[in-house]
Order: sequence, then C-alpha cells, then structure tokens
Amino acid sequence: SVTFLSTLSSVLVLQDFQTTEVWRAAAVEFIATFAMVFVGTLCTISTLQTGFHHPVLVIAIFQALTLSLCIQAAAPMSGGHVNPCITWTEMLTGHITPVRALFYITAQALGSIVASLAVKNIVGHTLAWKYMLGGCYLHSQPSPTSQQVGLQPGRALLLEIILSFFVLFIAYSVALDPQRLPRTGPRLAPFLIGILVGLCIFAGGNLIPGYAGAGTNPGRCLGPAVALGKSMWSHHWVFWAGPAVAGLAMAAMYRVIPPSHLQAYARRNAAILTT
Amino acid sequence: SVTFLSTLSSVLVLQDFQTTEVWRAAAVEFIATFAMVFVGTLCTISTLQTGFHHPVLVIAIFQALTLSLCIQAAAPMSGGHVNPCITWTEMLTGHITPVRALFYITAQALGSIVASLAVKNIVGHTLAWKYMLGGCYLHSQPSPTSQQVGLQPGRALLLEIILSFFVLFIAYSVALDPQRLPRTGPRLAPFLIGILVGLCIFAGGNLIPGYAGAGTNPGRCLGPAVALGKSMWSHHWVFWAGPAVAGLAMAAMYRVIPPSHLQAYARRNAAILTT
Amino acid sequence: SVTFLSTLSSVLVLQDFQTTEVWRAAAVEFIATFAMVFVGTLCTISTLQTGFHHPVLVIAIFQALTLSLCIQAAAPMSGGHVNPCITWTEMLTGHITPVRALFYITAQALGSIVASLAVKNIVGHTLAWKYMLGGCYLHSQPSPTSQQVGLQPGRALLLEIILSFFVLFIAYSVALDPQRLPRTGPRLAPFLIGILVGLCIFAGGNLIPGYAGAGTNPGRCLGPAVALGKSMWSHHWVFWAGPAVAGLAMAAMYRVIPPSHLQAYARRNAAILTT
Amino acid sequence: SVTFLSTLSSVLVLQDFQTTEVWRAAAVEFIATFAMVFVGTLCTISTLQTGFHHPVLVIAIFQALTLSLCIQAAAPMSGGHVNPCITWTEMLTGHITPVRALFYITAQALGSIVASLAVKNIVGHTLAWKYMLGGCYLHSQPSPTSQQVGLQPGRALLLEIILSFFVLFIAYSVALDPQRLPRTGPRLAPFLIGILVGLCIFAGGNLIPGYAGAGTNPGRCLGPAVALGKSMWSHHWVFWAGPAVAGLAMAAMYRVIPPSHLQAYARRNAAILTT
Repeated sequence: SVTFLSTLSSVLVLQDFQTTEVWRAAAVEFIATFAMVFVGTLCTISTLQTGFHHPVLVIAIFQALTLSLCIQAAAPMSGGHVNPCITWTEMLTGHITPVRALFYITAQALGSIVASLAVKNIVGHTLAWKYMLGGCYLHSQPSPTSQQVGLQPGRALLLEIILSFFVLFIAYSVALDPQRLPRTGPRLAPFLIGILVGLCIFAGGNLIPGYAGAGTNPGRCLGPAVALGKSMWSHHWVFWAGPAVAGLAMAAMYRVIPPSHLQAYARRNAAILTT
Repeated sequence: SVTFLSTLSSVLVLQDFQTTEVWRAAAVEFIATFAMVFVGTLCTISTLQTGFHHPVLVIAIFQALTLSLCIQAAAPMSGGHVNPCITWTEMLTGHITPVRALFYITAQALGSIVASLAVKNIVGHTLAWKYMLGGCYLHSQPSPTSQQVGLQPGRALLLEIILSFFVLFIAYSVALDPQRLPRTGPRLAPFLIGILVGLCIFAGGNLIPGYAGAGTNPGRCLGPAVALGKSMWSHHWVFWAGPAVAGLAMAAMYRVIPPSHLQAYARRNAAILTT
Repeated sequence: SVTFLSTLSSVLVLQDFQTTEVWRAAAVEFIATFAMVFVGTLCTISTLQTGFHHPVLVIAIFQALTLSLCIQAAAPMSGGHVNPCITWTEMLTGHITPVRALFYITAQALGSIVASLAVKNIVGHTLAWKYMLGGCYLHSQPSPTSQQVGLQPGRALLLEIILSFFVLFIAYSVALDPQRLPRTGPRLAPFLIGILVGLCIFAGGNLIPGYAGAGTNPGRCLGPAVALGKSMWSHHWVFWAGPAVAGLAMAAMYRVIPPSHLQAYARRNAAILTT
Repeated sequence: SVTFLSTLSSVLVLQDFQTTEVWRAAAVEFIATFAMVFVGTLCTISTLQTGFHHPVLVIAIFQALTLSLCIQAAAPMSGGHVNPCITWTEMLTGHITPVRALFYITAQALGSIVASLAVKNIVGHTLAWKYMLGGCYLHSQPSPTSQQVGLQPGRALLLEIILSFFVLFIAYSVALDPQRLPRTGPRLAPFLIGILVGLCIFAGGNLIPGYAGAGTNPGRCLGPAVALGKSMWSHHWVFWAGPAVAGLAMAAMYRVIPPSHLQAYARRNAAILTT
C-alpha cells in the first residue's frame, strides 16, 4: 500500500536517492578511495621494492600520510569516510541514512577495485602478485620448500574486531561525533585518524610471519582481492565480518556513553549547584 | 549512627556511586586502558619481532602515539587517566572523589588484564612469553648459559619514584591543573603527555641489560603479570609503590607551589602597583 | 575590428598585461621556482652522492620540505604555484586570467632552466650527467652490459595523469579553492602540499628500475632537460601531457562537485528545515 | 660643524648607542650565538665521532633544532638574528639602525669566537682539528697520499650567494617582514627558519668531496677560523662576500616586491570594484 511504501521510504530516507547531492558525495568517496588505494599501494610496492629492513614501519607511515590527505580533501564534500567500516557505523549511529550508506560503500568498493586494477596494469602482473598489491590475507603463498604460514581465521577475526573497534572508538571521540569535531577541528582530525590507522597497520603487520595484518577497512581489502583473484579470496570474509561486528559494538556504546557525556554531566552539576 | 554514616558518605561522596555517570566514566577508562595495552603490546611485539637495531626507541615512539590517541579519545568522557598513578594523585589533590578513584583504578586494572589475555590468545603462548607481553620486570629470564641480569629492587624503586614524579610534575603543569589546561588546550595536551611517557620509556629501557625500564603506570604493568603469572610477579610491588610515593610527593608540592603560582605572583605585583 | 579586439581583450583580461602587478608576481614565481629547483636538485645530488640505502625516501622528504618553504614564501606575493600544472588548472577553473597563466608558466619554465644551468655549472658536467640533475625520464641510460630499462610511455602517461590529478584534487580541497583556504589556513596548506608531492615522488620513484618516477610538475622537469639535452628530451612530452589532462579532469570535476558543496547542501537543508 | 655631526647622528640613529636597550639586545645576541655555535659544534663532533653512515643528514637535523631553539629564546629580546647576514639585510631594508647592526654583528662574531675556543679547549687540539670544529672551508686538508680536493672560489661564491639569498627570501616572507610575522606566528617561525638552514646545510654538505658546504652565516664561520687559524683562513672572504651580495639583492627585491604585495593589490582591486 501507499502508506507502507511511504513509511519505508521515510525510514530509509529515499528522497536522498532523488537528489544529486548524494550522487556527488558518492563520486567524491569513489575518487578519494581510489586515490588512497592507488597512492597507498604504489608506496607499499615502492617500499617492498627498495628492500627496507623494516618495511612495515615505512608502509605504516606512508599509509597514514596518504589517508590523512585523502580525508582532509574529501571531508568537506562527503565527510571523508573512505572506509565501509566508518560508513556502516555512521549509519548505525544515525548520522547518515541507509540509502547514503549504500551509495558510499558501493563507491568505496568500486574506487578500491579500479585503483587496484590500475596499479596492476601499471606495474605488471608479476610485480602485482609478488607484493599482492598490498592486500589483506591471513596466509601468504606457500613456497615449495616451506609449509604455509599465517594466522588462524578465528584469531584473525578477534584481532580484526578489536582493532576496528579501536579505530571507531578514537574516530568517534575525535571526529565523527558532531559535538566533538569542533573541539578537534577539521585540520587536526584527519591527522589523528591517519596516525590511528598507521598504528593499527604496524601493530598487526609484523605479528605473525605470513599474515598481512588487520585490515580495519574492508574497502581497501576488496580491491586487491578482485584484481588478483584466486588465493586472495581465501578467508576474505574476515575483513568484512570484523569491522561489521566492531561497528555494532561501537553503535551500542555510543548510545550508552556518548563521547561528550562528561560535559553534559558537568552542565547538570553546574545547574544543580546554581539552583 | 545516621550522622556518622552521612558524614562518611559526604566525605567519600558516595552519591557518586548512585549515579550512572561514574559507572559510565569507569567503563570508558576500562575501554581506553584496554585499547592502550592491547595496541601498545601488539606494537611492542611487532617491533621486537622485526629485529630493529634500536627497538626501545621504536617502542617509545609507538607507545607515545598510542597513549596520546587513547587520552584524546577518553578525556571528554572520563578525563582520560588510563593510569592508576594519575587517578591516585588526582584524588589526593582533591580533583576527584575517593569513590570515583576506586571505580577508575578497578576499571584500569581490568582493562589491562583483559587486553593482556587477548594478546596472549592471539599471538600464542610461546610468543607471549618470548617478549613477556611488553610487561614490567626487574630481571629478565635467566638463560642456562648466563647468570641472571637486571636491576636491584631498591634502585628500581628509586627510579620508579623519580620518573613517576617527573610524569606527574609535567602532567599537572600542562593538563591536570584546571587553570593550566586552557593554556595548553585539549588538543596539544595529550601529545605532550604521550611524548613525556615516551621519554621515560626510552630513558629507562636501555639503562641496565635485563631490566625492562620504569613502568610509571601500575595498571599497564598488572595485565602482563596476571596473564603470564610465575616470574612476572617477582618484585611486582615496585611498580605500585613507586607511583604511590610519587603521587604523595606531588600532592604535597601541589599544595605548596601550584603550577599557576607564577601567574598569581604577577597578578599580585600588578595589584600592588595599581594601588 | 575594435569590438572583436576589445572582446578578446576582456576575455583574456589583457589589462593584466598593462599593470606591473602581474610582472612582479611572475618575478616571484621565477624566484620561487628557481629556489625550489636549485635547492631541490642540490639535495638530490647530495643524497645520491652520499650513497643512502633508500635515496628516494630521503629525496622525497627534502623535496617536500623545500617545496613547502617555497610555497610559504611565494604564496602572499603570487599565490605560490611554482608548478605549471597548478597554474594551468587555476586558469581552467577561472581563478586566474589566461594572461597571468602565460606569465606564470613562462616564469616557472625560466626559473627551472636557470636553476638547472646554475647547478650544472657548480657541480660540473660529469656529476650533472651522473645524477641527471634529478630530472624526469622514463628510461635511464643503457649501460653497455645491460639492456635498457624503464617504463613504457603509455603506462607512464597513465601514472602521470593519475598522480597529477591526485595532487590537484587534494590541493584544491585544502588550498586552491578560495572558500576552503581559510579553513586550512596559510600556515598548514604549504606543508600539506609538500607532503602530497613528497608522497608522489616516493610512490613513483622506486616502482620500476630505470624510471625516475612521476613528475607532477612539468616546470621542474623542463630545467634538467634543457640543461642536459640529448636523451633527457626522450618522451619529455609525457611530463606535460599528463598534468594537462589531469588539469582538464580537475576543472570538470570542480564545476560538478565544488569542494565546499557539503556546506552548501547543509545550508540548503537548514533553510528548508527553518521554513 | 655641529649641523654635520647632528645630521650624521640622526642618519646612524646614534641615540641607540646611549640607551641600555641596544646593549642588552646585543648581549642576548652574544649569548644566543654562543649557545648555537657551542651546542651545534658539540653535536657535529658527537655525530662524526659516532660514525654515522650519513653524518651530514644528522648534523643538518641537529643544527636545525639548535637554531630553532636559540631563535625561539632570543626573538622576544633581540629579534633572534644570530646571523650577521640577517642583521646586515635588516639594516639595508631599514628595519634596524646601522648602530644596532654594528652592535649585533660584533656580538655575534664574539659569541661564535668564544664558543669555538671553548669547544676547542674541551675536546682538545687533535679532535678540534680532526673535525675542523664544524667550520667553513672550500678545501679540506691535503693528505700526503692524495691531491687536495674541494670547490673553486668562484663556484663557491656563486653557491654562497644563491643559498644566502634563498635563506633571506624565505626568512623575510615568513618572519622578518613586520606584516608577515603575525601570520606565521612566533611559535612556528623559528622552526621554519631552522628547517630552512638545515636544508642549506644538507644541500651543500655532500656536494663536492672536501668542501664543507655553504655557510649562509658568516658569524658561524668566523669562530672556527679564529680558534684554529692557519688553513681555516684560506678563502674565508667567500663566506662574508656571499651573504653580503645576497643581502643587497634581497634589499633591492624587498623594495620592488614587498612580501605582502598581493594583499595590497587585492585591497586596491576591491577598492576599484566598490567605486
């Protein structure tokens, strides 16, 4: 019936679909995710190509800088999510509509895929597979002389949940909560989130030989999986399930303890004292 | 009698116990301490796993960044202590009630323990013991071929007191004193305290072979001790006694020379001149 | 006829030509590009001369710092383009007149050429050729014992377009859009653009042996080509065509999705809600 | 006659000589230059002593930090020149009087000499000569087995002029122009100038074997020459003539294109449009 459809429409805020605004914002998410994955993957390949002694440290620094710049550029146009985990949690906490979330996640997935394909085309098939396009995996290729190494799916999922929650916990407190963003300011926030993700890349990247580290961004993980295929799809679900669970946990916490609740408490106390 | 109970209640501010605010603030301390110990320990293991030439420098930098982000995130919800030494001294200087301090220290201890158990589960028993979960100890494991090395408890206690006091002295001047925080600002303060703690980690970490360096945060030290047990409990009291004594010294100094006393002196002089 | 000439004149804003302002601004572009190429090339030669293990990383950092300082110095006098790619796109988006763009690009080209000749004169012919004055090329010199290496022109052009667009996309959002610059502020913006270009230098510099990496600044590439001649002119068009195409793409995107469009959308929504 | 003397006095602003202010400011310049040369030279010797793989990079970083701190400390008392090249150009652009310039340059020269003598006394004659007190020279000592190496005086003078002008060009735009300093702010400006001088030290330091790199600060060069004597005086004039010529060029440019001329132009245009 019309009533049911209009109710559904107002719940999903389908009028978002009819405006060009959400299309353009999704285009920005596409471009920013494309830029982040393209430049980030080139930096990763350049680092591994050079033979650094501590490549994970160098990769973490360059990913942090690339992400910071992409957020800084995209924030005034789309919010600068560039990560389905952020978009999903923003939807759960009611900051964006389900329709906008769908647009964003599709755009992020496409941006990552196109960037991975572009890098694969530029560096060639051999180099792309050698460094797996900087992608996400639990087990690197088994070499003929050694047994396969890596991390079990259960442990990887636990790590993925905890580190994604860590990213969300800090990101909400410094940037995503509308009451907190003006305090951090739009200049510092992208750097804090860049440092945050750089920390997570370093924390997981050297932990277990053969394990690429936590993704904390399923969009970033999707591109190399599509571009390379085959073994890159193995256990790929972990990099989506982890952030999804972390987003649910964050949304629950956000309802119970909003990031600005100490200020609200201080205001209430002040109100009681002045009575 | 009722009078005695109401007096005791008002001294301890037991109404804190009845509001949900302190429960939620303690939950934030739990999450922030969990995040700090979890990510910090992973970074420490990643660093030691990679075989850096100067691991203590790298660990100090990553701990400083992790701590900064956790304080930045938790500050608007709980004050962002994430350290029983800070909570204890805040109580002694009258900035928080004894009941709130008890909640916070319990939450910090639990957060550190759960984080250490989670890391131990993810990296496995062997790796956890190999790097001692980045914990606090005076003597590393004696190897069969060499005699036990490390630092004597008396000297370690002295170092613990001095470095904890150093942390408190700077932290009060840049952030914990209510008159000074607006000058530093809520954005810069977490970074200054992160640098401060990073300095302490670097200062103590290379001092004596086999000695892990000063803790300056008993909560952080408790987790690995509970998760690993056995020799990690040896001389563990040093990491609690040192900060406790330093907190008493800081509280005494805070009464005599408040961090803003130079400004007050300037104001008094100005008042005399205008008379 | 007079009408046609006055129309042409007003389209090109030829009165710009008659004022001394544009001459002086172009002089600043000349000096700033000269300084950037001169100091940048000396840093590159110093780095390669020292035999760093990871010269591209060191070069990227020093180029980022040099560029930041030159933009910081030139911005209040000319806008601080120091890059024909920026000037070209600023013209396409209507922020500067075609006449001013012509002045700027000529000044940038001359600045780069004079700087490269000055460095060649100071370090001597052998050293200048050994390190190719830090110039832009797809293939390094073929050595007698090995086959020529490098990147095919088609792939290099694709990389040049994408990285130039990346530079423009971020630069417009943080600095070149007049509505966005006050948000970033004139202090931070030069550093962000320096980091941005440093990232691009690192991303491309180690990708393929024998390939110098993407230019993203045709002015910087022109100087070494003129000063050294011969093989440095091979495929030089790539370093101009890439930024030219990227500029056209950026100008198109700028019309459709201006960097401040989310604010405009928020204002429109607020207007609707208050109606 | 009295008229001639009073004219001369007013041109040189000799009343500066009679106030205690200029004496105290010169004393600050002496202390700050002494600190910069003393700490900077110790850092240089410590770096070379340790056997770093890339000492010039480490030296450049430490000189940049030392200089930044010395400017930060001296700026509110004397302007924080600590460099005769800055003082000379400030006099030419009319920001300070000739008498003040004479006081400052004398103080800087004395500060550098006393610091070099102190370092020579502490580290001993052999070590002082081994590392030439971090001084300025075109040719290192000829060893018995090899021919003398270094840079010809003409080329060194050209490099000295260009890099000194680079320092002045950036320093005026970010700090020395009274209209520009409030934009950069007193916290950031000393760091920018530190980075600037660090860049110049790195740019010239590895260029030609046996050449110490450009001085861009004749005061800093004078101390080691006086303390060591003999061959350190060879071609010493280059380190004074270069900055002197660069100062004349900067003063000429400052008259024609003041750093804030774009703002003035924008104001004029706005005035025309509103007419």
